[in-house]
Amino acid sequence: MSFVRNAWYVAGWSREFGEALVPLTICAQNLVVFRASDGAITALEDRCPHRLLPLSHGKRIGDTIQCGYHGMTFGTDGKCVRVPGQSNLPASAYVDAYPVLERHGIVWIWMGEADKADPALAFDMPEFSDPDWHIHHGDQLHIRANYLNVAENLVDPAHVSFVHPTTLGNAASENVPVHVKTSGEAIVAWRWIRDAEPIGFFKKFGGFAGNVDRWHYYYLHLPSTAVIDFGSADAALALPEEERDKGVRIFALHFVTPVEEGYTIDHWMHLRNTAVGDEAASEQMDAMFRIAFAEDKAILEAIHQEEQRPQKRKPIRIAIDKGPNVYRKRIRELIEGEATDDLGEAEMPVFVQHD
Amino acid sequence: MSFVRNAWYVAGWSREFGEALVPLTICAQNLVVFRASDGAITALEDRCPHRLLPLSHGKRIGDTIQCGYHGMTFGTDGKCVRVPGQSNLPASAYVDAYPVLERHGIVWIWMGEADKADPALAFDMPEFSDPDWHIHHGDQLHIRANYLNVAENLVDPAHVSFVHPTTLGNAASENVPVHVKTSGEAIVAWRWIRDAEPIGFFKKFGGFAGNVDRWHYYYLHLPSTAVIDFGSADAALALPEEERDKGVRIFALHFVTPVEEGYTIDHWMHLRNTAVGDEAASEQMDAMFRIAFAEDKAILEAIHQEEQRPQKRKPIRIAIDKGPNVYRKRIRELIEGEATDDLGEAEMPVFVQHD
Amino acid sequence: MSFVRNAWYVAGWSREFGEALVPLTICAQNLVVFRASDGAITALEDRCPHRLLPLSHGKRIGDTIQCGYHGMTFGTDGKCVRVPGQSNLPASAYVDAYPVLERHGIVWIWMGEADKADPALAFDMPEFSDPDWHIHHGDQLHIRANYLNVAENLVDPAHVSFVHPTTLGNAASENVPVHVKTSGEAIVAWRWIRDAEPIGFFKKFGGFAGNVDRWHYYYLHLPSTAVIDFGSADAALALPEEERDKGVRIFALHFVTPVEEGYTIDHWMHLRNTAVGDEAASEQMDAMFRIAFAEDKAILEAIHQEEQRPQKRKPIRIAIDKGPNVYRKRIRELIEGEATDDLGEAEMPVFVQHD
Repeated sequence: MSFVRNAWYVAGWSREFGEALVPLTICAQNLVVFRASDGAITALEDRCPHRLLPLSHGKRIGDTIQCGYHGMTFGTDGKCVRVPGQSNLPASAYVDAYPVLERHGIVWIWMGEADKADPALAFDMPEFSDPDWHIHHGDQLHIRANYLNVAENLVDPAHVSFVHPTTLGNAASENVPVHVKTSGEAIVAWRWIRDAEPIGFFKKFGGFAGNVDRWHYYYLHLPSTAVIDFGSADAALALPEEERDKGVRIFALHFVTPVEEGYTIDHWMHLRNTAVGDEAASEQMDAMFRIAFAEDKAILEAIHQEEQRPQKRKPIRIAIDKGPNVYRKRIRELIEGEATDDLGEAEMPVFVQHD
Repeated sequence: MSFVRNAWYVAGWSREFGEALVPLTICAQNLVVFRASDGAITALEDRCPHRLLPLSHGKRIGDTIQCGYHGMTFGTDGKCVRVPGQSNLPASAYVDAYPVLERHGIVWIWMGEADKADPALAFDMPEFSDPDWHIHHGDQLHIRANYLNVAENLVDPAHVSFVHPTTLGNAASENVPVHVKTSGEAIVAWRWIRDAEPIGFFKKFGGFAGNVDRWHYYYLHLPSTAVIDFGSADAALALPEEERDKGVRIFALHFVTPVEEGYTIDHWMHLRNTAVGDEAASEQMDAMFRIAFAEDKAILEAIHQEEQRPQKRKPIRIAIDKGPNVYRKRIRELIEGEATDDLGEAEMPVFVQHD
Repeated sequence: MSFVRNAWYVAGWSREFGEALVPLTICAQNLVVFRASDGAITALEDRCPHRLLPLSHGKRIGDTIQCGYHGMTFGTDGKCVRVPGQSNLPASAYVDAYPVLERHGIVWIWMGEADKADPALAFDMPEFSDPDWHIHHGDQLHIRANYLNVAENLVDPAHVSFVHPTTLGNAASENVPVHVKTSGEAIVAWRWIRDAEPIGFFKKFGGFAGNVDRWHYYYLHLPSTAVIDFGSADAALALPEEERDKGVRIFALHFVTPVEEGYTIDHWMHLRNTAVGDEAASEQMDAMFRIAFAEDKAILEAIHQEEQRPQKRKPIRIAIDKGPNVYRKRIRELIEGEATDDLGEAEMPVFVQHD
């Protein structure tokens, strides 16, 4: 198992959860999710402890779920409140309840030890609360690949020219070196392509006539949230790194949720400092993103297939792999840390700060 | 393997077998079945001992089967009668032949040691030979689940209110206690719901205006034949248990045949003491049964899927599980008994009689 | 693994390879194949050594392949010629290159040690270069079965009467004995059916009015090339064995290429001494072959399925299995020989000559 358990994972957007019992799987754990009458979202283990029928095959009775087989009924805390045919409620009659956090229209579920579920550990950024920024919740991308490959791809600027030649990249960036650093628990890879033709995306949305300076900053937060800060500004401005807000700037967010070892959902959305309030622009951007993400999906699924086949020799690593290499190492440390929690080392591993 | 070998299993109805070579699988054993010229049904191992081609890919030459690859030919006793290209018949040139029993339009195959294949061990009941009862052979229900879960479901009255709320059950019975006893090798679970609204099924076929007494008796015979004796009578009659024939009474029979570990066929039919000779009534009942059995199938297949996933803790057992618990214990004893036959304990295990 | 590595395997006909990157699998090894600008065909390991994306997902840049993920680029010798983002080329940046041989419109790939790839080891016959013979490249038959079963079937005249009763065989041959000998590394099985009704095939193409002498010679060359020399001549001629060219004679060739353990491609074609230059005749023959080969495919796939199931006892061998038995023994010897090459026994095993 390659999952980090003590983490918030995105289950979906707020608009996706209501009255209905929604079955979903995170870190190979089946969950049933619904919004109770007080508006709070409940996430329970989706398996009746009696005969194992998924509770999502049952039905809601008020704020409880009644199993579809023999009617055992469970509250939002997972405890059994009714066993038809008997008056006592056995102590073993419960399902696991998972901490849920809802913020900025995003629903997170904590897949590890409940007492460690600190809301401060869920990803946030000030632009979510800034009216000058437009927030647009996108869609889900389902990928038949391990989540580490999906996340790694998001801290990897080098693939853009080859996988997305007509949307997010172009040949101008092929040989521009990639910088990598760590910043707290995040890994950051970035590059600036100065004084070059704008890429398709900004031709369309930036309205640039001549050459631009273009930046791509890839932040990968553990275990698997990626923030891609990209944008362009007129090359004549010679924009300094710290003044990116003066250009057309977009934060593309990817909340990468492991479903099974070989199945991942990328919940993607974006924030932007242009076309605020313009839903037509959001749809145009989504359409462009969909093309690009389908390109990633094709590559990642082909690799996943290939990884299932026998390996003749170890894969090689090259210069552009700096970000992925640090990422893999940190994930291994997190997973090993969780496996040895019983020795009393329960905190998140401390990383050396390089920022 | 969870199969009881020394038992008769239903292969289908008499009308399904004739000239053609019919391939089917019982207890993970592939069989080829056909009716010979004398009317007797033959069941042979469906695998040529030479190159393993299923004999059902071959063709009949009189009452023999000629393999479709090199023409080796086998009689109804499984012995090879011809090897093209040579005159001698090697002793190892045979396929297993299985005892077959045909009675009341039902075809049974004995999957264990041939010398134990006593016809008296196949399920029978006097109503099959009683002209006051209508016998209707129904259909097959194919279920992607282990046969023990399918059979267990048939000695479990408690699921009816939750799985079949609009056909066989209604909310009136949710809390009515279930009685369980053993009666010889059969397990019996039953309950009476007194003075309640008739269920959908009897509203349609019983013609009752007011409240009824309704009974459900679930008999589960080893290894996997279920008889569900259910019916209703006007509540005003206060019908005693032993006079159920005075009400509208139906015996729904389920011959549960294991195909593979995760695949089961339920051959279902019924006998009834009403609408005798009325084929339109049979079809209406089949239609109703089909709806109800599809409800069971959905539940059983969802559970089967869930059982393939890792288990965090042992399933719990509750009060209504008495019948299933006894059933599982007896099946385990039968399978263990067969595994130790070589020690000289060849009889069917003797059960304590509680009737 | 049941593959002989040091052998030429047919990848397809010359006409199937050009500019495009063609992915294919031989002996469980994924290859990408294309024709370079000088006309020579290149076969490379279809897996980038960096992140394992199949190179066939990339694109050609001149006579190199550029990986579709990060742009690593490989020449026709498999060596990396470019790593975007760095100037040095690591020694480990290569993919395996496989020897290719193109002759008579057939493309062969050598799957073993490159220094043993002697073109003289690829199948050839003088009729390929004889203008009195018509050469017709047929098609591929994809079979979900192990290649040994496919090849074995091609040195097995005894199946023809039972599998192909209306095309290649008829009942007249059922009991005609099969002769078997070895001839160098080839196994030969044959029989003459003298003075019998012509089979469907020669009724159609031989124009015979009365009875014919019909021959079938099955040559199986290691590891898996079959030549079926079959034909007919007027029975009145009492044709001697060595004068078969005086009859209507066809060589049906089968180049049996293992894809995976349970998946095989039979590349089939024929040469004939009749209807030379008549493409309509070729198409009629292909149509007839397609019917017959579909019959083989059905049998071979049913057997393959059956072989995956548990075996109760060892399959038996009968008189007609002489050819297949010798074949299996020789293949085992070849595979064992390759497994012990490191002991210094690198030559092809020498077979006792019986010709």
